[in-house]
Amino acid sequence: MDQDVNANNSPPAERKLPRDAVAVGVDFGTLSGRAVVVRVSDGAELACAAHTYRHGVITDRLPGTDIDLEPETALQSPEDYREVLRTAVPEALRASGASPEQVVGIGTDFTACTVLPVTADGTPLCELPGQARRPHAWPKLWRHHAAQPEADEINALAAERGEKWLARYGGRVSSEWQFAKALQVLRDDPEVYRRTDRWIEAADWIVWQLCGRETRNVATAGYKGLHQDGAWPSEDFLAALDPGFSDFVRKIDHPLSQLGERAGGLTAEAAAWTGLPEGLPVAVGNIDAHVTAAAARTTGPGRMLAIMGTSTCHVMNSDVRAEVPGMCGLVLGGITPGAWGYEAGQSGVGDIFGWFADNYVPPAYHDEARAQGTGLHELLSAKAAVAPVGAHGLVALDWHSGNRSVLVDHDLSGVLAGMTLATRPEEVYRALVEATAFGTRTVVEAFSASGVPVRDLTVGGGMVRNPFVLQVYADVLNRPLRVVASEHGCAVGAAVHAAVAAGAHPDIHTASAAMGRVREETVDPDPVRAAAYEELYALYRELHDHFGRGGSRSLHRLRALRNAALAGGGTEKGDR
Amino acid sequence: MDQDVNANNSPPAERKLPRDAVAVGVDFGTLSGRAVVVRVSDGAELACAAHTYRHGVITDRLPGTDIDLEPETALQSPEDYREVLRTAVPEALRASGASPEQVVGIGTDFTACTVLPVTADGTPLCELPGQARRPHAWPKLWRHHAAQPEADEINALAAERGEKWLARYGGRVSSEWQFAKALQVLRDDPEVYRRTDRWIEAADWIVWQLCGRETRNVATAGYKGLHQDGAWPSEDFLAALDPGFSDFVRKIDHPLSQLGERAGGLTAEAAAWTGLPEGLPVAVGNIDAHVTAAAARTTGPGRMLAIMGTSTCHVMNSDVRAEVPGMCGLVLGGITPGAWGYEAGQSGVGDIFGWFADNYVPPAYHDEARAQGTGLHELLSAKAAVAPVGAHGLVALDWHSGNRSVLVDHDLSGVLAGMTLATRPEEVYRALVEATAFGTRTVVEAFSASGVPVRDLTVGGGMVRNPFVLQVYADVLNRPLRVVASEHGCAVGAAVHAAVAAGAHPDIHTASAAMGRVREETVDPDPVRAAAYEELYALYRELHDHFGRGGSRSLHRLRALRNAALAGGGTEKGDR
Repeated sequence: MDQDVNANNSPPAERKLPRDAVAVGVDFGTLSGRAVVVRVSDGAELACAAHTYRHGVITDRLPGTDIDLEPETALQSPEDYREVLRTAVPEALRASGASPEQVVGIGTDFTACTVLPVTADGTPLCELPGQARRPHAWPKLWRHHAAQPEADEINALAAERGEKWLARYGGRVSSEWQFAKALQVLRDDPEVYRRTDRWIEAADWIVWQLCGRETRNVATAGYKGLHQDGAWPSEDFLAALDPGFSDFVRKIDHPLSQLGERAGGLTAEAAAWTGLPEGLPVAVGNIDAHVTAAAARTTGPGRMLAIMGTSTCHVMNSDVRAEVPGMCGLVLGGITPGAWGYEAGQSGVGDIFGWFADNYVPPAYHDEARAQGTGLHELLSAKAAVAPVGAHGLVALDWHSGNRSVLVDHDLSGVLAGMTLATRPEEVYRALVEATAFGTRTVVEAFSASGVPVRDLTVGGGMVRNPFVLQVYADVLNRPLRVVASEHGCAVGAAVHAAVAAGAHPDIHTASAAMGRVREETVDPDPVRAAAYEELYALYRELHDHFGRGGSRSLHRLRALRNAALAGGGTEKGDR
Repeated sequence: MDQDVNANNSPPAERKLPRDAVAVGVDFGTLSGRAVVVRVSDGAELACAAHTYRHGVITDRLPGTDIDLEPETALQSPEDYREVLRTAVPEALRASGASPEQVVGIGTDFTACTVLPVTADGTPLCELPGQARRPHAWPKLWRHHAAQPEADEINALAAERGEKWLARYGGRVSSEWQFAKALQVLRDDPEVYRRTDRWIEAADWIVWQLCGRETRNVATAGYKGLHQDGAWPSEDFLAALDPGFSDFVRKIDHPLSQLGERAGGLTAEAAAWTGLPEGLPVAVGNIDAHVTAAAARTTGPGRMLAIMGTSTCHVMNSDVRAEVPGMCGLVLGGITPGAWGYEAGQSGVGDIFGWFADNYVPPAYHDEARAQGTGLHELLSAKAAVAPVGAHGLVALDWHSGNRSVLVDHDLSGVLAGMTLATRPEEVYRALVEATAFGTRTVVEAFSASGVPVRDLTVGGGMVRNPFVLQVYADVLNRPLRVVASEHGCAVGAAVHAAVAAGAHPDIHTASAAMGRVREETVDPDPVRAAAYEELYALYRELHDHFGRGGSRSLHRLRALRNAALAGGGTEKGDR
């Protein structure tokens, strides 16, 4: 199947590029995929097209069956991914006005860890005859959280055995990652586990679909696959977890590819799907957040990029290797070859604002927004923005989805302190926005305190459309914010990687400088507000440490009480 | 003016009562007054009529003037009070079908401390020529909070000097009370202070209006006037507060009347207002919460009455004198002659639920309530009631209006812990209801821990209309709740006192047993829920002590930050 056996390591620098060369980037998100066509010389976005997955996130019932899924399950359909290649890519190309011949390469990025079991030739197990009725034969989306018991086992054993790789993940691996999810398959459906020839990130699987050969990128191998210092977790360790798991590495092992490399050339089949030329360079797979660094021009050391959407992901390259408490992962070359790539995260950001706006805003505000022809978030932001810092008398903890960095504790929950009978919805909204900004500042300070300097901060993601949110972040962090100019940072980043894989630029840094885009104006802190936020931030940190670092176990006790009540709660209804 | 000079101390026990004798009780509330006509033999409520004050609560501008009032000001009009006598009383009498001759007496109760400056003949200063434009010439409603600096001075000096009376008020007097309010008048308008011959509770002033002679009841003198062990605060103390204040006791001193005594007979003028016979026995004035004990049959020792409305007031007689931490006041004879009358309180209860329902419930819930033809509180209660205890994973502190008992700290504010993205409005509502129940339990336990046993608990006030709230209280307190049967407990209590003043019953206990009414069924705790609430209550107490007893000063720092921001906040709007 391999059409371009030498492509992997030798970028075709001699290749003659057409005038107005473009690259295609394809971003595979949680609910949809989108393709962009980007000019290689200056990063101009010529067109974008999106395709919403037909099956979206599969949480309740397997498609076409009567099989109910267990709680915390989140699956996807591989065919939905292919459909993005068949629809969004040709549509974007058509809309761009570029001819297929102008396209120098195609790059992709994916949510991670989204992982699936496939045969030796890359066929998803769920597409084999009779396997579609087995939940574990389907791709597990990043937010599949049913493998928490397995993650707990891995963490306990790794800590007990002093596994060195554990520190690279802030001392704790996630239930979202490859090993926990695979161990769940072994436990819950050994037959699927046995039939799994390859356990592969969707990021690498989609590249396989494009170029017909398996590759493995260093980023998902490192951040999600526990690959560190040239090795996977040992067979000893895996056997201690479960004797049946000792062979697991055979299902994932493969030479790793550096980011920006050429994985291969487009197959005839993929060329037919996409309308792009057969043999077109295909870039190595990548993670959505990490690839965005190329679009944000933050591939240099100490340039932190915060991608703020429903949650926030922080990625940053550094020359320094250090153990930052609560970081999600540290991978050499994980963002750009040769640099130490750090990842940290906040598990709830935009979804906290959305939760509040959806559930806790009274009819009068809805009416007012309608009358003004604006959205609820815009209305709340406008009302909130006029007050001086601290006038609401509130401070919140942004832990409605737990805390990823720096506490790595998903049993935590949100706190709001300071309410009076005069407290208005926009004040609570502002306190929630501020809490997420305090959370970001906590992450930034954890890096600095660990000897990993954060030189500057760039923000991207959907949240950049809210100027109030950006201003709060600038004031709270007391530093100017660079803002990613593209609405499609991930896809553009994938296109940058495609341009590098195609040899249109010599490396990711150069390509990023040419093609990445940030707004001309930074969002600057107001000195008066920034000074006023010091006190509020100190209060946040006090609550943070009290509830998050053992001063009080009350949030954990509340969670335990809730879980027990819900587990045994069937009788209560009858009581009343 | 005194028409019945011997009436004060000699109840006319020989008086021949008409068949089907009735008593009139008049309750002067915050926004309106209401009169009830109650049968003396069995407490049957024959009729009720209400009158809403024309001026309500005066907070922004003096009536008929262009004079703006300072923040935290809350005044009322004496004429509004008289109008209740002219309208509600005759209307209730007419509706009852009773003839004036059947009426044996009239009793009143009032919000407290609501206090006004009057001349030697009882004329309110605001009714003197030219004085209506002076804010301090008007009655100050109980919730006038502008005298907080004066209250702080009084507390600091009393603590420094070790004034013995301070312990009778849980160690802290309120800005709502007579001395703080009078000191504010002295400071802010010395001319009004100088012209004040008598500084009198509205509870006593309305009785003066009815019977033409000044009396002072022991309850307001004790709970609001700092009268303890037969004495007022010393002239020394007052002079140390302010030399100009040293003569203040002359403006309030007067022989005190026991509750249930006859203050005098109805004047011809008041008879004309009310349609009642001249000379009719008028009972000594009383406080709304305290007089309700007579309607609730809780005048016996250890029978705590919780009057649950926007806030909650706890009143209880005891044979025991003790210093209960955080009690509002302890007065001998303050509820019933001869017993130690305890008062405690929760500053926010129904108004917290109202604040949440008014401001934090989304349109879909409003629509659903409308479709069901029910109210928002009923809808939230019904949705909340079906879940097992603790299933919301939440705990709240009910301090949105500060904490009266047991912390006596009005700079505290509300806290809500445990939110997730799945948290629903009805779950927050339930957490707020539970928090107020935990607050009540904290009060009850403070009494028990101080050696003042709480034998049983009766609840009254508007909140008894919500069965969900009552059930939560029964479960949290893990004891049966007796429930006041009348919708107009205060006014009925005033009628009970009227019957005693008229000699229709020998004392308040007997009259209360005959005329007071509680529901036949108690609200009983569910053992399973009660057990489950132990853990949640422990979490409440942990947060309570952390935020309220010095573990964290964060709520105070938030309040200080808010106050500073609001004081200097004028510039912020221009910044943006």
